[in-house]
Amino acid sequence: MIPQKPIDYDHIPEPTLRRLPWYLAYLKLEREKGETNISSTQISRAINVGASQIAKDLSMINVSGKTRVGYDVNELVDVLEDFLGFSHTHKAFLFGAGSLGGALLHDKGLSQYGMEIVAGFDVNPDRVSMSINDIPVYHLDDFDQMQSQMGVSIGILTVPVDRAQEVAERMVAGGIRAIWNFTPFRIHMPENIVVQNTSIYAHLALIFNRLDHQSQKK
Amino acid sequence: MIPQKPIDYDHIPEPTLRRLPWYLAYLKLEREKGETNISSTQISRAINVGASQIAKDLSMINVSGKTRVGYDVNELVDVLEDFLGFSHTHKAFLFGAGSLGGALLHDKGLSQYGMEIVAGFDVNPDRVSMSINDIPVYHLDDFDQMQSQMGVSIGILTVPVDRAQEVAERMVAGGIRAIWNFTPFRIHMPENIVVQNTSIYAHLALIFNRLDHQSQKK
Repeated sequence: MIPQKPIDYDHIPEPTLRRLPWYLAYLKLEREKGETNISSTQISRAINVGASQIAKDLSMINVSGKTRVGYDVNELVDVLEDFLGFSHTHKAFLFGAGSLGGALLHDKGLSQYGMEIVAGFDVNPDRVSMSINDIPVYHLDDFDQMQSQMGVSIGILTVPVDRAQEVAERMVAGGIRAIWNFTPFRIHMPENIVVQNTSIYAHLALIFNRLDHQSQKK
Repeated sequence: MIPQKPIDYDHIPEPTLRRLPWYLAYLKLEREKGETNISSTQISRAINVGASQIAKDLSMINVSGKTRVGYDVNELVDVLEDFLGFSHTHKAFLFGAGSLGGALLHDKGLSQYGMEIVAGFDVNPDRVSMSINDIPVYHLDDFDQMQSQMGVSIGILTVPVDRAQEVAERMVAGGIRAIWNFTPFRIHMPENIVVQNTSIYAHLALIFNRLDHQSQKK
């Protein structure tokens, strides 16, 4: 079940990439319960994704189950963690240590999933030179110097929305190659920069809308 | 430009609902700069969505621009905030005041977007009976009593992944009608329950994967 040929990163669709962490979360639960083998049908029943879709997704990372035995849970967890990048540490800088940024600095879950925030940057004198959860916060003007020492690839963007584009450009000029954008602003970036938008407040709108809509149906 | 006929909530596609907060964020920036009118072309250039898509999205909430004048910025901000549910307060309970849960309790941004977390629940004695950011944390066993006093509709699920299903069921039994699931576990819920999955760690996998992939290309 260990991948035999190199994985074709170019052809793994984003929906597959989004589902793989769900499988991983479930498999880790089952491993804790002592399960050693699991079928795609079992995974399917637990997380509401079709069994054939699961088998297809896993075949893309060169994993296939054995007839009547299914997948080896331990091996599948290892392969998934490794493929998803959770098994080694990626250093990140955080830009904007305000409310949401400060909250992310507090979140220990990120390091469990392979991201270590090594420093934060801000321009507010109340935040600069302090530490949040033992992570130092520097003035934004110190970014280039810190970057030359640390060579970080990932930047987390949690600045106010009206600074998003400007700070993102500064990040890229300093050598950041992937931006995790938590602002609701769609930043414009060169094609070679990885941008992941995670606008949690946009999800709020989806909840409110569907909740209000259901109330109207009653 | 004020909506004339009732909005047909049944037929607003989710992609539209996801884009509307982007328009709102940009429009609020422009309003601060003193802009009073804006065209779909201007919005398009700023946030990288086609102008005709923008016009179509806005027409779904019964807003249309005027020829050669465009949209009235003030009115459009009001209509969007109202439609998205950001202009009035929705009370929420948070379940699981650990790392990510505690981080969300710290985030003042949620209240700006219409969500007020009125209490947290946990089972860890170290967290129960304390307050985080002035929000009280109670034992999970006190949920039903608090709920009978407060009648909250929205529950934020930030428990460990192996408790997600069980706690979600308890939330629904207690009258919660919408669950904002931050765990990577796909909870099974009755059809009438609104479930919004926001697995920020799954986004990490997307970043790592694309970043590693780009490094390989070099």
